[in-house]
Amino acid sequence: MSGQKIYLDYAAATPVDPAVLKAMLPYFTEIFYNPSATYKAALSAHKDLETARAKAAHWLGARDSEIIFLAGGTEANNLAVHGVMRRYPKAGLLISSVEHESVRLPAEQYGGREIAVSSDGRIDMLNLKHKITDETVLISVMYANNEIGTVQPIREIARLVKEVRADRLGRGVELPLYLHADACQAGNYLDLHVARLGVDLMSVNGGKVYGPKQSGLLYVKSGVRLEPLVFGGGQERGLRSGTENVAADIGFSVALELAQKTRHEESARLQKLQKQFIEQLQAIKPDIYINGSLKRRLPNNIHVTIPGQDNERLLIQLDEAGILAAAGSACSADSGEPSHVLTAIGLSDDDAQSSLRFTIGRQTTTAMVEHTMKILRQLV
Amino acid sequence: MSGQKIYLDYAAATPVDPAVLKAMLPYFTEIFYNPSATYKAALSAHKDLETARAKAAHWLGARDSEIIFLAGGTEANNLAVHGVMRRYPKAGLLISSVEHESVRLPAEQYGGREIAVSSDGRIDMLNLKHKITDETVLISVMYANNEIGTVQPIREIARLVKEVRADRLGRGVELPLYLHADACQAGNYLDLHVARLGVDLMSVNGGKVYGPKQSGLLYVKSGVRLEPLVFGGGQERGLRSGTENVAADIGFSVALELAQKTRHEESARLQKLQKQFIEQLQAIKPDIYINGSLKRRLPNNIHVTIPGQDNERLLIQLDEAGILAAAGSACSADSGEPSHVLTAIGLSDDDAQSSLRFTIGRQTTTAMVEHTMKILRQLV
Repeated sequence: MSGQKIYLDYAAATPVDPAVLKAMLPYFTEIFYNPSATYKAALSAHKDLETARAKAAHWLGARDSEIIFLAGGTEANNLAVHGVMRRYPKAGLLISSVEHESVRLPAEQYGGREIAVSSDGRIDMLNLKHKITDETVLISVMYANNEIGTVQPIREIARLVKEVRADRLGRGVELPLYLHADACQAGNYLDLHVARLGVDLMSVNGGKVYGPKQSGLLYVKSGVRLEPLVFGGGQERGLRSGTENVAADIGFSVALELAQKTRHEESARLQKLQKQFIEQLQAIKPDIYINGSLKRRLPNNIHVTIPGQDNERLLIQLDEAGILAAAGSACSADSGEPSHVLTAIGLSDDDAQSSLRFTIGRQTTTAMVEHTMKILRQLV
Repeated sequence: MSGQKIYLDYAAATPVDPAVLKAMLPYFTEIFYNPSATYKAALSAHKDLETARAKAAHWLGARDSEIIFLAGGTEANNLAVHGVMRRYPKAGLLISSVEHESVRLPAEQYGGREIAVSSDGRIDMLNLKHKITDETVLISVMYANNEIGTVQPIREIARLVKEVRADRLGRGVELPLYLHADACQAGNYLDLHVARLGVDLMSVNGGKVYGPKQSGLLYVKSGVRLEPLVFGGGQERGLRSGTENVAADIGFSVALELAQKTRHEESARLQKLQKQFIEQLQAIKPDIYINGSLKRRLPNNIHVTIPGQDNERLLIQLDEAGILAAAGSACSADSGEPSHVLTAIGLSDDDAQSSLRFTIGRQTTTAMVEHTMKILRQLV
């Protein structure tokens, strides 16, 4: 391992897969045409873009027309929340208390209320049920958490949403109720089939599935009408104007396919590494504990509290030893505030500041985990 | 020329320059880190991103902190208009009658009023002066038109804006007045120095300067406060959240530098081709005429009306002969409506439907222009 870096921050960014980059390359310099142009060469760019859309739709079990390509997961989450709430400005929305900032901050603007989570980060279904009113138009719940890796019961929430809709129909309440899932961290490991999940809106992020940064999609179920964020030439069914990012959209679709095709195998492989990681971590010191659900968890996430340890100092020491890990989400790395996710699951500020996130991925090996443990045993 | 295509639609899309692609490549697979992460490898990605920002700032004569990287020209225009108007929802805005849809459609939502243009597409300064009131907070005028290539007197408008501000100050009117220029078509040929231009906001589009699609920037003058379109992790000074598109931002900055470094030389070269193109076109039939200003014009634009000719049919015939041109902007190619730009400069619907846009660029040669003329003489 000496001299080589061990990257353990796959939740923050994934390298673009070589097959993805290869698929993108022709669209920079050769098939660079504007897909809206009318000559045959441009129609070919348009066709390749639509093939990419069909590919993404296939893995989501969606119609092609339900796939809106846009510039990244944050934009997808913003389009979901602003898109619904600007259509129904007087209605209310509910989000879980562990959502990403790209859901939290838009939701705040419409008075979004939070659904409590239990100490393992799973949504409290009773609390959700209790908070849905006839004014609720949107529920937004993260499929898998970016910090602690907890997987939410999206199917169960979808069943509840279905019941509420039936009840509203019976009582003549006309407001729709939509379910949005932020699946930005889920694409490599979990089922993204929208009908099985029962979602109306779902965000997928290219930059987290070994695709290019600021690529991604919002699934928008047929019949769900959104107000766009970006207006103009009317691309992407009018929901995301601007000349299409052909190379990135195509790269993203290849990345998504690769991730979904290999997800069972890769999940099994990473689960073993994760188990090894967690067991050896806990053997270092008896008071070390893992945050988030152990059962309902992404196979690549190890979020740990090492009581008394300053996480910033430990991260610097790890970095010096060639191990790249994170204190929380990269997005909030600058703020200095304790993570709202850790607060929501009941961690004290002290314990939050003694917590680290290791996220493993496609390039992680047993040897890397062992080397990391060796270093950690020296440092902790 | 046989077998090879002649691309004459550089206003719709430009191929990514090989030097740009080369600059981007390391950031897909190697330096793929999230620039917000704290380890040294990520700081290097962050540093390279900031170097790209400094490079873009240099060519605009701006501060680094005034450069907001975002996903394309359409998003930049939307951020400028929505960004100002959501801060000042009760104020008014003025746009020229020849703006791109990405300015027109956002402006419509705030009751934007249009400033007339003369028959060559230049803004009517008296009409502008007349329409500015104490409620006007934003004036948005395209630096160079995407359809007819007319260059607007941005400096002159900026001088007027300065006068209005001084007058408001004297009378105790507190509302600011901002000038936004959509420079998406200008980057290859015109001066982008924001202080010389006198703009407060300016959109630049990577996909039109031989950079990647959905890259670009909004220049936001220090002190101008905007409401973001996309909320989240707070990247780009909070104005464009989402993990930064490192590869695209770096590629864009290289493309912008290349375009600005070579703009005098390339403008002179294209002006000669443009002159040749126009003279030979007009020699085909005496009633053929060029739209837009001949004097204040992008050196790469030839927008022509061939009375009695159906432009759609002609475009198909040209395509069959290997010549790729456009009827108008690619964005509105689908709508079937006559272009608002051509209507604004006084063209009849019939003449609008007999109009073609040829836009030349870096790969265009004298031989290509001659071959195009040969084909046009056969078809018209």
